[in-house]
Amino acid sequence: MSERVTGPGEPEPTLESLQQRLVDFAAARRWEPFHTSKNLAAALSVEAGELLEIFQWLTPEQAAEVMSEPERAHRVRDEVADVLAYLLQFCTAVGVDPLAALAAKIERNEHRFPVPDGAADVNPDVDDQPL
Amino acid sequence: MSERVTGPGEPEPTLESLQQRLVDFAAARRWEPFHTSKNLAAALSVEAGELLEIFQWLTPEQAAEVMSEPERAHRVRDEVADVLAYLLQFCTAVGVDPLAALAAKIERNEHRFPVPDGAADVNPDVDDQPL
Amino acid sequence: MSERVTGPGEPEPTLESLQQRLVDFAAARRWEPFHTSKNLAAALSVEAGELLEIFQWLTPEQAAEVMSEPERAHRVRDEVADVLAYLLQFCTAVGVDPLAALAAKIERNEHRFPVPDGAADVNPDVDDQPL
Amino acid sequence: MSERVTGPGEPEPTLESLQQRLVDFAAARRWEPFHTSKNLAAALSVEAGELLEIFQWLTPEQAAEVMSEPERAHRVRDEVADVLAYLLQFCTAVGVDPLAALAAKIERNEHRFPVPDGAADVNPDVDDQPL
Repeated sequence: MSERVTGPGEPEPTLESLQQRLVDFAAARRWEPFHTSKNLAAALSVEAGELLEIFQWLTPEQAAEVMSEPERAHRVRDEVADVLAYLLQFCTAVGVDPLAALAAKIERNEHRFPVPDGAADVNPDVDDQPL
Repeated sequence: MSERVTGPGEPEPTLESLQQRLVDFAAARRWEPFHTSKNLAAALSVEAGELLEIFQWLTPEQAAEVMSEPERAHRVRDEVADVLAYLLQFCTAVGVDPLAALAAKIERNEHRFPVPDGAADVNPDVDDQPL
Repeated sequence: MSERVTGPGEPEPTLESLQQRLVDFAAARRWEPFHTSKNLAAALSVEAGELLEIFQWLTPEQAAEVMSEPERAHRVRDEVADVLAYLLQFCTAVGVDPLAALAAKIERNEHRFPVPDGAADVNPDVDDQPL
Repeated sequence: MSERVTGPGEPEPTLESLQQRLVDFAAARRWEPFHTSKNLAAALSVEAGELLEIFQWLTPEQAAEVMSEPERAHRVRDEVADVLAYLLQFCTAVGVDPLAALAAKIERNEHRFPVPDGAADVNPDVDDQPL
């Protein structure tokens, strides 16, 4: 397998190409036995918690400035990468196309939550707010 | 704004086009005030928990068959969509490119975890296993 | 086994008595095979997410009033119960005394975070704030 | 305030006494402004994720042996303490009695899940299994 580093002038990575690189990455290290759907769902949840940890004590105002501090911004990008990596590996394990799943969900939600004439400016109820 | 439903013969959605549709979706409903980085990080973690819930009592064998039951398979796709939706909305809120973040992380990990000559077949330690 | 309902005039439940009732509850329903340490850790995380879900879109001001609405207050108490139930069942599975673990942790933290002369009034750093 | 270390011969800590020590601990460090119900619910979820992290790659057999390795056992006790600490601090913030909430929930579940004559030995469905 090749594990090329994207260089200058190379095309932007796509979701599909990154999903494949993660497959190759795990295969080269023989990590597939650990990458069951259940383990990956747990790991995804753990990483989402690590992203949330960055924000847990911040006021709304501080949270809005989270990317202005370089070290914290790096942590945010790093945790976003971890969440996306495990989500893609989970999708590989269960055979789900994440883009198709999201497109279908958005379409359902566009019907479920029609745009109001005056548009809503109240706090969406927890149970009503899908996205 | 337009909220078209993808029809037959239309191009596959891309991550970028779905991210934009989510922006439009929230804007049309005036939900932006709730979509702070902190709230979206919390919502992402909540949805990752809902995905994990599907697997929490399953044996490894049962987890491997999770998609063979249609209703459960629908739930899995639905939760994958929710996790991806909140991740993209979070990325919009903080100005992070999720594909670039993941590409950079994979490159760091390719250096951090060189492929062993014989390749590893032991359980990766919790603290060592990045992806 | 007895599964008595605590009546008026009966003593307040203790953590230990509730932990035992949960053991009896699961045993009577033959649920022990599902109550592995790993499954219970996953379930605990899922329930903590459900508690967080109640708060995810609330402003700090709204969050401070969360118990003033009876239905939402019931949900909060219900999720607190679920988190505590799974934490106790997890402790049973691994043989950890939760009160001793917490007492030991508080003592470590009292040494790790000495009370400052003027006392801190700045936002505790994410990595420094233990409790 | 006093922050005594429990010594030999002293009484076992109770949930209530530990909850009060956590109140005193935060007050002495002036951390109360950060301990809103929403922040504490987030922190509880984050810590539950850290507990789950210990188990995420383990097989059921390995998970059953998690306490046999001293360093890992220490991590488990440490994360149990963190989860319980944030749960108690959350309960303080919203004015919920965790023992009363759990006792009430167990009673509801004893009615909702009557003990079957032959007792169940099938995998409890995700939506049916409360505890």
